[in-house]
Amino acid sequence: MQWYLVATLLTILTCSQGILTTLSQSNGGYKYDYATVPFLAEVFKLAVSTGLLWKKFQKSSLPKMTTEWKTVALYPIPSIIYLIHNNVQFATLAYVDTSTYQIMGNLKILTTGILFRLFLGRKLSNLQWMAIVLLAVGTTTSQLKGHGETSRDSLFSAPIQGYMLGALSACLSALAGVYTEYLMKKNNDNFYWQNIQLYTFGAIFNMARLLLDDFRGGFEKGPWWQRIFNGYTITTWMVVLNLGSTGLLVSWLMKYADNIVKVYSTSMAMLLTMTVSIFLFNFKPTLQLFLGIIICMMSLHMYFAPPSMLVDMPLTVRSDEEKLIEASVDRRARP
Amino acid sequence: MQWYLVATLLTILTCSQGILTTLSQSNGGYKYDYATVPFLAEVFKLAVSTGLLWKKFQKSSLPKMTTEWKTVALYPIPSIIYLIHNNVQFATLAYVDTSTYQIMGNLKILTTGILFRLFLGRKLSNLQWMAIVLLAVGTTTSQLKGHGETSRDSLFSAPIQGYMLGALSACLSALAGVYTEYLMKKNNDNFYWQNIQLYTFGAIFNMARLLLDDFRGGFEKGPWWQRIFNGYTITTWMVVLNLGSTGLLVSWLMKYADNIVKVYSTSMAMLLTMTVSIFLFNFKPTLQLFLGIIICMMSLHMYFAPPSMLVDMPLTVRSDEEKLIEASVDRRARP
Repeated sequence: MQWYLVATLLTILTCSQGILTTLSQSNGGYKYDYATVPFLAEVFKLAVSTGLLWKKFQKSSLPKMTTEWKTVALYPIPSIIYLIHNNVQFATLAYVDTSTYQIMGNLKILTTGILFRLFLGRKLSNLQWMAIVLLAVGTTTSQLKGHGETSRDSLFSAPIQGYMLGALSACLSALAGVYTEYLMKKNNDNFYWQNIQLYTFGAIFNMARLLLDDFRGGFEKGPWWQRIFNGYTITTWMVVLNLGSTGLLVSWLMKYADNIVKVYSTSMAMLLTMTVSIFLFNFKPTLQLFLGIIICMMSLHMYFAPPSMLVDMPLTVRSDEEKLIEASVDRRARP
Repeated sequence: MQWYLVATLLTILTCSQGILTTLSQSNGGYKYDYATVPFLAEVFKLAVSTGLLWKKFQKSSLPKMTTEWKTVALYPIPSIIYLIHNNVQFATLAYVDTSTYQIMGNLKILTTGILFRLFLGRKLSNLQWMAIVLLAVGTTTSQLKGHGETSRDSLFSAPIQGYMLGALSACLSALAGVYTEYLMKKNNDNFYWQNIQLYTFGAIFNMARLLLDDFRGGFEKGPWWQRIFNGYTITTWMVVLNLGSTGLLVSWLMKYADNIVKVYSTSMAMLLTMTVSIFLFNFKPTLQLFLGIIICMMSLHMYFAPPSMLVDMPLTVRSDEEKLIEASVDRRARP
């Protein structure tokens, strides 16, 4: 499978995730316990990965699986980072409004690029660095509020702690992604086996969270496993399956592509969601969305297009042929 | 003289032009007849060019000067295009508000690129085309209005004639620039001689405009030459000298550089003016200005940086050396 097909699929599913989540709400709120969704998604991913590994076992030779404790112990770390991240996110929202938080979220694109370079030692060309900066600028532009909505004034007026926590949040989010890539590429263990370890810890941490919520609520509504499917509709199940599928695609990209591909995929999904919302939810099209889309498209092209397509490379047969055609066009076009 | 020094000087003078013009106003209006400013600027440019040509005559050999009517007849054309442009501009403002007109003005960047390619037959790389699009997007982003100012709603709600006239205006403005470049580079006539022809017609057309205004007003305030300096202050004179100087720099760029350099120069001046206004006129800094500046800086770098600086060129000594240094850094950075 080609990485760009997986990335495109991830874009579409991430977009439908946003739309399904909106559709699963009633009167602006959830009738089900939203914390059960990521837990069930982890279980779904675990089940799929186990099934596929099982199939592999039956079919042919033994897939490569490292089972020593030293390696397995690395797999809960992404879950731990996400746990810290969620708490930082919660703390940030005490200082800034959601609109400012959303804008700051684009910092994640830059921190991912930086950690990708520092921790994975992957070199990017100047043009690719510029593309990453432009992607962050483009997504931010598309989210700029117009007349009558939450104003830009709030953006520069939050306490400094809010911005520092927002930056920390962006670093943690990038760290989780970069660490997962490191983990998936560390050895050539079977992909499904790596997934099983990742999702087992993911399921455990999500379960612990549900339990903690119960403790905090004094078990007033009963333990989570008794009311896990309360308020579930067909749409809620689609949200679960969709979230699980995007998770599997992200895992695949971490092993066979990289974090930057994932960042582009989810950024494009954000723009696609905003565009689709114009038709589905009667959102007003804004000039800033249009400009943001152009910037992100340019960035995508700058990052992934082969350099020979972007600049005029000397001494290649193809560009010489082009020059001949151009020259004849030039003569006609000259005034 | 290097073109980038001239371009930088043009940026600074264009920026100070905006600031001086604002400073020359009193209570939001002009105490002098603004139409006299471009006329006097033309006279100033004509005087400077004549003086410099005279100096050239006295010093040495005869400078190359084509004086046949067929060539001289090409020089009033830029003035004629600007005359049509001014009328189209006036008509456009009957359909759209000034804020929308300003946003549409950025189209000029794209039309200049297109006419530059079509009429002057100059080839740009894909990356340079992307840079031009980004420059237009960046200047537009910086001009997006925030909360409480003219809303974006007005941007999409003007009658279709407004947008068509705006596009026509952008084409005419680009055409004037591209035609002037064609004229200046057409033969290797002395630069000052070309200027003299250009500015003589410029002065005549501006004089005609002053006379027309008098006719329209029924000579109630007397003929223009009797009240030309009415209300002039030292700041007004600085506006005149500044406008004249930017004109001379633009002429120089048209002959020794090109239209794209000029477009970058004036776009950067616009951003610089907005930034300086934050300090001078207590303008509120906006996120959109910040994003616009980043986009335009990226665009500048993409357009003018040598390709070898942007992408990793294979088989060059420099990049091999870099790879060695990078490799040693990589080993340290890997987790």
